[in-house]
Amino acid sequence: MRKSEKKLNINRRNFLAGTATLAGLAATASVVPITIANANHTTGEKGLPDFISWKNRDALIVHSDKGIETHRSAIGESLITPNRNVYIRNNMPTMTDAQIGNRKDWKVSIYGVKNPKIFTLSQLQKLGHTTIATILQCSGNGRGFFEHKVRGSQWETGAAACVFWAGVPVKAVVDACGGISENSVYMTASGIDHVPTGLDPNKAMIERSVPKKVFKDAIIAWEMNGVPLPNAHGGPARMIVPGYFGINNVKHLGKVDFTEKQSGVKYMKSSYRISPIGKKGSQYPSCWEMPVKSWITRPTDETGTVKAGKVQIVGVAMGGTKKVRTVKVSADGGNSWKIARFVGPDLGKYAWRQFVLETTLASGTYTLASLASNGTDEQPELRMENRRGYAHNGWKDHSVQITVV
Amino acid sequence: MRKSEKKLNINRRNFLAGTATLAGLAATASVVPITIANANHTTGEKGLPDFISWKNRDALIVHSDKGIETHRSAIGESLITPNRNVYIRNNMPTMTDAQIGNRKDWKVSIYGVKNPKIFTLSQLQKLGHTTIATILQCSGNGRGFFEHKVRGSQWETGAAACVFWAGVPVKAVVDACGGISENSVYMTASGIDHVPTGLDPNKAMIERSVPKKVFKDAIIAWEMNGVPLPNAHGGPARMIVPGYFGINNVKHLGKVDFTEKQSGVKYMKSSYRISPIGKKGSQYPSCWEMPVKSWITRPTDETGTVKAGKVQIVGVAMGGTKKVRTVKVSADGGNSWKIARFVGPDLGKYAWRQFVLETTLASGTYTLASLASNGTDEQPELRMENRRGYAHNGWKDHSVQITVV
Repeated sequence: MRKSEKKLNINRRNFLAGTATLAGLAATASVVPITIANANHTTGEKGLPDFISWKNRDALIVHSDKGIETHRSAIGESLITPNRNVYIRNNMPTMTDAQIGNRKDWKVSIYGVKNPKIFTLSQLQKLGHTTIATILQCSGNGRGFFEHKVRGSQWETGAAACVFWAGVPVKAVVDACGGISENSVYMTASGIDHVPTGLDPNKAMIERSVPKKVFKDAIIAWEMNGVPLPNAHGGPARMIVPGYFGINNVKHLGKVDFTEKQSGVKYMKSSYRISPIGKKGSQYPSCWEMPVKSWITRPTDETGTVKAGKVQIVGVAMGGTKKVRTVKVSADGGNSWKIARFVGPDLGKYAWRQFVLETTLASGTYTLASLASNGTDEQPELRMENRRGYAHNGWKDHSVQITVV
Repeated sequence: MRKSEKKLNINRRNFLAGTATLAGLAATASVVPITIANANHTTGEKGLPDFISWKNRDALIVHSDKGIETHRSAIGESLITPNRNVYIRNNMPTMTDAQIGNRKDWKVSIYGVKNPKIFTLSQLQKLGHTTIATILQCSGNGRGFFEHKVRGSQWETGAAACVFWAGVPVKAVVDACGGISENSVYMTASGIDHVPTGLDPNKAMIERSVPKKVFKDAIIAWEMNGVPLPNAHGGPARMIVPGYFGINNVKHLGKVDFTEKQSGVKYMKSSYRISPIGKKGSQYPSCWEMPVKSWITRPTDETGTVKAGKVQIVGVAMGGTKKVRTVKVSADGGNSWKIARFVGPDLGKYAWRQFVLETTLASGTYTLASLASNGTDEQPELRMENRRGYAHNGWKDHSVQITVV
């Protein structure tokens, strides 16, 4: 639990400081992380990088030019996070319109199937059509609550969004290729956003292997919340793996392969591994399935003065790869809990649900916490300590302190 | 069925012509309709009136400065229509930020209850919270298909949107006022957007009475698709009456009254009545409940060349005040039908559902039609002829012609 207002100011300073440092490092390319060295982002009047100048600055906390978080209160109370408020986490620079070319002609190759094929986006759109709601969440969402010196954007709750995607089921694509090769164990998706950088694909390519079974629910999406998938979110085509952390939802999708082994690129082999503090390596679990999680969005210190009397405590809860079943809310930091009510439509097990607890609060200070369960797993009280601050779903750190007057 | 491309050009011309005419009429105010005389809208570079300069011009057909339609293909395939693409139909000029003042202090008076009260928006937000998806649809949506000379925007399918609203249930507000007065028959909602015009409230006030029973599902909304309700859509607070035509979803809501009689203002008494051609009057039914309806969104002449082979026919279907149950699709103008499949989450009976029919089409010309049923009512083939072109749900006019190459 931190004060977002304070955090915002700190983040603004870090961002400016970071920009200056990058300029200074430009001459010594060997020490610049490859992902940042090639960004060349400029920042416009709004304080947002130009590639997302269309976003809503007031809704966002800028950690860096490729790590931009949604304020806790700015995911909205309408289930779906508006595109202009959705967080940004890019490992590679967003591809430009010029690099993408005609969106209808964008190509996705399918391998590891009986009859490998290359489809244009137009052709994919003829193979099948569906719409799903999923949660997009960075593996490091909640990293800002860790207390060891953890590298990466110091996200609190806002590297997460609930989004409608329209696209073709991977199953329909696979069927059009005669089915999956028998020996395959993984579905491996590759982005082509490293191509314009000219960097070594083994270091720069975003290629992610996930257990083959997920192909049944996965889609290749070309639309996000009713509009053509924005470049900044991986347009014109992106792999959507419901229930899996953001990194597996590969942007600028160029290839889907059903493979016997996991990809050997850096972003699969060594990055995004959940390892103990001080240790690393491909023997540790990859950031795949998201765990059950919830957090409160109103009231917080962002949503204005809370007056004594009746209060609506509102938040979102996700079940991970299972449907979220219950949410309990505490106003005393976890000493006592009450069952909250779900409101709004159920968008499916991969979306979050909105919960409300109506209560009455007298003047004073309160610590509001929420605790979700998917029927099998419940949020733990504490974070699972790990080197890179991944997969945090402990309820205590996600609580908020409010003052009622 | 018309060619939208042709229509778009016509509409652009009409809009420009209309603007010129208005300027010419400025000196003879007595003949200018009061709703237009007070608009004073200017049109920016994008060809959109300034009050909606934030909208997506490419998604919209401009009939007039207060009648702006969404292209058939631009409601998106993600169930919810993005705010930037949602149609505009205003009877009064949109209130400005200056006229609205501090949104949290916006007042809504509640009458026709045991203990009448005036609530600020802040206070309403403490009384309850929910999120619903509903269809917002102008009573005249489909008017463009009528063949008698009917006054008003010549809408085809795009004066409709599916939207998430967040707000307080009217029931929670009524409960906070001790319940509804026993003798009431109607829920009457009033906007205050006529106030800045100084016009006679009997002619200019948007005040709509609906059967009292709807209060159980109605909400007072302050959020639309995740953002504070835009002024152009009735911010900061709007009455949402699920299943009822747009006009009943009163913008800039200032009062809710549970009344024995219907309001006597023009917009209730004489406007929005479904009367035979050549007749009018308050004895005819008001535009209240929406009927079952559907239309195809892809492929159309807006969505590009259709190549022979497998085709996904996609559209939306609504049940009105009942859940939509089935949709049939025809590729031969209604001679033969096949059951389409619903895709995507069910957002509740007041939202539309997306349907898909996968089929194979050889080269040639096809007339695609859709026919929805809510289990009780089915769309008729033909329109119900009426003076103002209201409530059109005939499937034939809504069909689209495509050429497969």
